[in-house]
Amino acid sequence: MLVVMHSHATPQQVEQVLAVIRGMNLTPHPLPGATRTAIGITGNVGAVDPRLLEVQPGVSELIRVTKPYKLASREMHEDDTRVRIPLTPTPLPKGARGDAVVIGPGTFTIIAGPCSVENEDMILRTAEFLHGQGVRLMRAGAFKPRSSPYSFQGLGQQGLDILARVREKTGMGVVTELMDTENAEAVAAAADVIQIGARNMQNFSLLKRVSRIAKPVLLKRGLSATLEEWLMSAEYVMSGGNYNVILCERGVRTFSDHSRNTLDLSVIPPAKHLSHLPILVDPSHGTGKRDYVPPMALAALAAGADGLLLEVHPDPDHALSDGAQSLDFAAFTRLLESLRRLAEPLGRTLN
Amino acid sequence: MLVVMHSHATPQQVEQVLAVIRGMNLTPHPLPGATRTAIGITGNVGAVDPRLLEVQPGVSELIRVTKPYKLASREMHEDDTRVRIPLTPTPLPKGARGDAVVIGPGTFTIIAGPCSVENEDMILRTAEFLHGQGVRLMRAGAFKPRSSPYSFQGLGQQGLDILARVREKTGMGVVTELMDTENAEAVAAAADVIQIGARNMQNFSLLKRVSRIAKPVLLKRGLSATLEEWLMSAEYVMSGGNYNVILCERGVRTFSDHSRNTLDLSVIPPAKHLSHLPILVDPSHGTGKRDYVPPMALAALAAGADGLLLEVHPDPDHALSDGAQSLDFAAFTRLLESLRRLAEPLGRTLN
Amino acid sequence: MLVVMHSHATPQQVEQVLAVIRGMNLTPHPLPGATRTAIGITGNVGAVDPRLLEVQPGVSELIRVTKPYKLASREMHEDDTRVRIPLTPTPLPKGARGDAVVIGPGTFTIIAGPCSVENEDMILRTAEFLHGQGVRLMRAGAFKPRSSPYSFQGLGQQGLDILARVREKTGMGVVTELMDTENAEAVAAAADVIQIGARNMQNFSLLKRVSRIAKPVLLKRGLSATLEEWLMSAEYVMSGGNYNVILCERGVRTFSDHSRNTLDLSVIPPAKHLSHLPILVDPSHGTGKRDYVPPMALAALAAGADGLLLEVHPDPDHALSDGAQSLDFAAFTRLLESLRRLAEPLGRTLN
Amino acid sequence: MLVVMHSHATPQQVEQVLAVIRGMNLTPHPLPGATRTAIGITGNVGAVDPRLLEVQPGVSELIRVTKPYKLASREMHEDDTRVRIPLTPTPLPKGARGDAVVIGPGTFTIIAGPCSVENEDMILRTAEFLHGQGVRLMRAGAFKPRSSPYSFQGLGQQGLDILARVREKTGMGVVTELMDTENAEAVAAAADVIQIGARNMQNFSLLKRVSRIAKPVLLKRGLSATLEEWLMSAEYVMSGGNYNVILCERGVRTFSDHSRNTLDLSVIPPAKHLSHLPILVDPSHGTGKRDYVPPMALAALAAGADGLLLEVHPDPDHALSDGAQSLDFAAFTRLLESLRRLAEPLGRTLN
Repeated sequence: MLVVMHSHATPQQVEQVLAVIRGMNLTPHPLPGATRTAIGITGNVGAVDPRLLEVQPGVSELIRVTKPYKLASREMHEDDTRVRIPLTPTPLPKGARGDAVVIGPGTFTIIAGPCSVENEDMILRTAEFLHGQGVRLMRAGAFKPRSSPYSFQGLGQQGLDILARVREKTGMGVVTELMDTENAEAVAAAADVIQIGARNMQNFSLLKRVSRIAKPVLLKRGLSATLEEWLMSAEYVMSGGNYNVILCERGVRTFSDHSRNTLDLSVIPPAKHLSHLPILVDPSHGTGKRDYVPPMALAALAAGADGLLLEVHPDPDHALSDGAQSLDFAAFTRLLESLRRLAEPLGRTLN
Repeated sequence: MLVVMHSHATPQQVEQVLAVIRGMNLTPHPLPGATRTAIGITGNVGAVDPRLLEVQPGVSELIRVTKPYKLASREMHEDDTRVRIPLTPTPLPKGARGDAVVIGPGTFTIIAGPCSVENEDMILRTAEFLHGQGVRLMRAGAFKPRSSPYSFQGLGQQGLDILARVREKTGMGVVTELMDTENAEAVAAAADVIQIGARNMQNFSLLKRVSRIAKPVLLKRGLSATLEEWLMSAEYVMSGGNYNVILCERGVRTFSDHSRNTLDLSVIPPAKHLSHLPILVDPSHGTGKRDYVPPMALAALAAGADGLLLEVHPDPDHALSDGAQSLDFAAFTRLLESLRRLAEPLGRTLN
Repeated sequence: MLVVMHSHATPQQVEQVLAVIRGMNLTPHPLPGATRTAIGITGNVGAVDPRLLEVQPGVSELIRVTKPYKLASREMHEDDTRVRIPLTPTPLPKGARGDAVVIGPGTFTIIAGPCSVENEDMILRTAEFLHGQGVRLMRAGAFKPRSSPYSFQGLGQQGLDILARVREKTGMGVVTELMDTENAEAVAAAADVIQIGARNMQNFSLLKRVSRIAKPVLLKRGLSATLEEWLMSAEYVMSGGNYNVILCERGVRTFSDHSRNTLDLSVIPPAKHLSHLPILVDPSHGTGKRDYVPPMALAALAAGADGLLLEVHPDPDHALSDGAQSLDFAAFTRLLESLRRLAEPLGRTLN
Repeated sequence: MLVVMHSHATPQQVEQVLAVIRGMNLTPHPLPGATRTAIGITGNVGAVDPRLLEVQPGVSELIRVTKPYKLASREMHEDDTRVRIPLTPTPLPKGARGDAVVIGPGTFTIIAGPCSVENEDMILRTAEFLHGQGVRLMRAGAFKPRSSPYSFQGLGQQGLDILARVREKTGMGVVTELMDTENAEAVAAAADVIQIGARNMQNFSLLKRVSRIAKPVLLKRGLSATLEEWLMSAEYVMSGGNYNVILCERGVRTFSDHSRNTLDLSVIPPAKHLSHLPILVDPSHGTGKRDYVPPMALAALAAGADGLLLEVHPDPDHALSDGAQSLDFAAFTRLLESLRRLAEPLGRTLN
C-alpha cells in the first residue's frame, strides 16, 4: 500500500503517519519525491483498516499496490531510480571528473574487469587501463561460484585485500560478489557495489543479509527466473531497507545451444515498465564467447539498458576462469568507441 | 565439398567440372565470386574420390565442408549474401528511387504491414502510407496459421488478389506466407518474397516445394529450433536450387513469461558467423506487445540484423489478428525516425 | 456449445436439432452416449441465440464449453474415447484372436516397429516377430522427416507398397507417417492409422486434410507445444469430422541434455483431465537411447498412458535411422514381459 | 583418479597409500568394497605422477575417472550406494520393526509430511498417522524458501523444536530443509536427513557446510540444472567427506504450463547410469496439483526411483503453504496401497 502525502504536508505530519504505520506492526518506507512525499507500507497489509490512515493530517490518498512486489514496482515508485555509487577520492589526475557514478536515466554505465582476482599485478594493470578509458567501476571476483568443487574457487579474503588496495591506489569503484552471509562484512568493506550472482538470486538468507548493508546491490537474474521472481528477489533486499538495487540480465537457460546462455534483452522493456530499478546487461556471461560480446553490448544499449557488466582481461587466453568470453584491452577499447558513437543519438552518456 | 577454381579458369573448364560432378550422381552448385568461381557439391559426398576432381583442368583446390549444412555455410560461401528483390515498376512518383530492394550488408531493410489482409482498403491505405515513408516491402498474410480452427484463417485466394492489385497500384513489394504446397503457385504469383512461417520451418515437403520457385524465401525460425536446425532448413531450400534465403528470428519458446515469445537477438552474431545468409528480426511476434517493439527493433539493428519485419496496422485496436503487437502509423513513423538516427553511426542505410 | 438431448428424445427430434444448427451456419457434431445423445456445435458459436435451441423438442439443456478446444474437451465429451482400429483379416493362425484393436480404457496398446521401411525383408521379419508376441500394430515410416536434406528421406511410395504387402500377408495393422497433403491418399490406402509427426503438429493444412480421411490419426505432440496447443491441433482434425484422434507424447525440447528430448510423462494426468482422447507415449524418441526406453515405457504405463509407440529393429546397430534408440527383438520381448507383469495390478490388459 | 587395491592388500598397505596421497596434497577417499578396497583421489589430480602410486605395495591398478564428478560417478564407485538413516528408538509399538531406514536398491522409501511446520499438533497428528501407515521418515520445513518476502517464512527455531519433540515422541525420522550456514547446527540437531532445496542446489557455501556434517543430505535438483551440474553439486558434498547424498528430482522449468514444474522422470535412468547415488522423486512440487500426484508417484516407482518425497497434510485446504499440491490422509493411504501393489512385480519393498 502506498500513502501519498499532500504536497504541503509538514515533516511532523509525515513523522506522525510513519508512527501510525509502525503502531500497526507494519514497515513504512518513506519515498521522498520532487513535489511530495509518499510512504510505502510493507508487511501484512491486508489487515490494515485504510480509514485509520486516511484520517491522518497531511494524507492525500491511499493507493493499493496490486503487484506482488511492492517497493520494486512502478506502482509505488513512479520515477526511475538513480543508484548513486560514491567513489573513494582518486589520486590519479583523470579521476578529477567526479566523486560518484550514478546509474540511471541519461547515462550508460560501464562496469568492467576480469572474472576473478588472480593476483595484484593484473588487477592493478586492469584498473589503470580502465581508468584511462574513463571507466570508474571495476568488476572482479574474490569468491567464485564454480560448478565443480575442483575448479579455482577464487582467492577469497586475499582477493578482497587486493581489491581494497587497488581501489585506494586508483580510485576505481569495486563491484565484487558475495556468496554467503559469513563473508558479508568482509565483502562490504572491500566493495562499492555488492554483487549477488545468478545462482544465488533466490538465496533468500543472503538477500536478507545484504538488505541490511549500506552498499548498492547488483542483483543478477537467475538462470531460469521469471521477471516477477527477479523483482521479488529485489523486493527482499528493498524490504529490509536497502533501496539501491541494480538489476543485471546475464542470460537465461533455454534449449538454444548457439551460446553459453540465451541473453534475454527482451526482458529490458517489461522490466522498465514494471519497475523503476536500473538494469544492466552482462553480455560476457550471456554469450560466453568474446566475439559475440560487442554486438550484444550495442544491442543492450539500444534496447534501453542502463549499462553493461563486461569481462575484460589483460591476457584472456591465460585467464584462470572465463577466458573465452573476456575481451582484451584492444577489443574493449574498440567496443567503448562504438558504444560512445551509438549512445549519442540515443541521448545517453557513457560513465 | 567445395571445388575452388583457379581465378583464370575458363567457362569451359567450369562446365567440364560441373559435368564430372553430375556424372558422379551429385549436385553441383556454381558459386561465382568476385575473382574466381567455386562450385559447391551436395549429395552423398562421402563417396567421392577427391582425386577425380583435383585432376580436372582449372581446379585450384578442394575444401571439405565440415558443417552439416553446406550451401548455407560460410565455409562454402565466404561473402555475405545479398538477396535482391526486384520490384514492379512504380507509378507513384516517390517510387523512382529504385527498381529493387537488396537485403544484405550496408543496408537495413524494413518490411512492414498488417498481420493479415483484412480488406482491400486497409491494404491500400497501409501500402500508400508505407511507400510515403520510403518503405518498399509490405508484409500481409492471405493464409494465416492459427492455433484454433475457429479463428480467422485469412482471406485465402481473395487476399492474394488484393495483394496483387495493391502491388500493381503502388509498386510495393509483397511478402506473404505460404502454408502448403497446394497454394505454392498462387502465392508465388502474388508475392515478391515467399514467407515460411515458424510452425512450418521443418515442414520439409513445403521447403522442397519453394526450393523450386524463383522467388526469395523468408524463412522464420521455429519456436524451438536450434541455429543448426534453422540453417538445415535453409539448406533444404538452397539444395533444391533456390539460393535466395533470408532468415528471420521471431522469438523462441522458453519458460519466460514476460513476453509472448523470447526474442533471441543473441542468435544474430553466431548466425552471421556460421552463415552468409541475411537475417531479419520480427520484434512484433517476438514481444507480442506493441510498446516493446521499438526498443527491440533498435536493438536488432545494433546487434547486426539486416532488417526488420514489423506489424503495422491503420487501426491496431480493431485488427482481426495480432492487434496487440501492431504499431499504428504514428508509432511506426517515430520508430523509423529512431532507426534512421541509429543506423548512421553503424554505417547502415535504411531501405 | 453442447446441446444435451433428453434420454427419451426421438431420432426425428435429434435430426430436427441438427437441421436448426446447420440453418445457423454452424456445424453440428452428434455425440451418441449410453443413455442419451448430445450434439456439439462448432463455428462462430458466440452469435447463437441459445433460446432458439432451447425451445426445440427433445432438448434437455445447453452447456457452454469454456475451453478453446471443444470437441477434444471433456466438457463436451465426458467419457473416455475408445479408438477402434479395424484390422485386415489375418491368414496367420494367431491372428484369430480379434479383428480390431481398441485404444482406450482398460487396455494398453503396443505399437512397435522400425523407424523407417528399409526393405521388404526387414519389415516382414519385424511384422512376423511382433505378431508372434501378440502385437497387432506396426509402425514404420515410408516418408521420413529428416532435419538434413542429405539424410535418408525414406523409400516413399515404394515403402508404402511394402507396408501394404506385409499388412496383407501378416494381418498387422500399419501406423505410418503422412508428411504432406500430396501423399494423403497414398498413405491412407496403406495405413490403418495415419501418423502426424511432431514437426507437423501445427501444419494446419495437413491437419485439415486428415480431418477428411476415414482413418484414425495419431497426433504427436510438437517439440514445444503446450497441452492447449496440442488439443487445439486435435480440434483441427475433429472439427473436420474425424473424431478418431490418438495423442502421442514423444518428448519436448528443454535445456536438459541428458536425453535427446525431455519425455514429459507429467502431461498425461492433465491431458486425461482436460480431454477424453487416448494418449500414447513414445519413449524411443523421448529418450533417444535404447537403454532408457524400458524404464520410461514402464513409467508411461504407471502414469496412465493408453499405450506405447516403440522403435524395434531386427538389427538396431545397422538401422538406416534412429538405431541408437531402437530395441532389438530380445530387448523388446523382455520389455513386453515386464509390461505385462506391471499391467496386472493396474487393471490393464496389453493389446 | 581411483586407486584399486589388491583383494589381499593389508590395512597397513591401504594406510600407506592414503599417506602417500596426502603427501601429494590431494584428498584420499577410502571406498571399502565387498572384496577389496579402492581409494578415490580428488584435488588437482592432473599433477600426479601415476608411477608414484603404482609402485606402492598392495596397489592393483590406477583408473582415470573421466567425468568431471568423481566421487559421485559410477566410474569410481560401481555399486549402488545405500544411504542408511538411523532412527531414534521408538516408544510406539509399531516402531519395533527396525532401527534404520535404508534408501537404495530393492527398497522404495516414502518420505511424507506437510510443506511446513505449522504447529505442534498438526505435526504430531501427521507423524502418528504416517507411523501407522508404516512410513518412518517425515518431511516438514521449519525454514521455508519463499519467493516473496511477505509470505510465511516458516517457524524457524521454534519449528525445529517441534520437530525434535515429535521425533522423540514418535520415533519418526525427520527430513527438514537447511537454507543457510548460520542454522546448520540447529538443523543438524533436529534432522535425520538435511534437505537442500532446489533454489540452493548451487549455493556452494551451503554445500561445503553440509559436507562437514555427519547427516545424510537430500539434494534437490535445481529448476534448470543439468544432470551434470546436479552431480557436481553432489560432488561438493562428497568431496568434503559426506558420502551420504540422496538425489531428489522435483520438476524443472520449461515452457510447459500444464503443471507447476515439469517433473522430469526421464532423468532417472541416466542418473542411475552415471551415478551410484539413490534418487527420489517429489511429485508434489513436480506437478503442483494433488490430483496429478498419484499417477506420477506410480510412474516414478516404475521408472526406477528409490522413493518419494510427498506432501501430506491433515487439512490441505487450510495449509499455510502448498495446500493445492498436498494429499490428505485418505488420498495418501490410497496411494500407498497402489504403490505396494505396483512394487511387488518390480521386486521392490516399500519402507
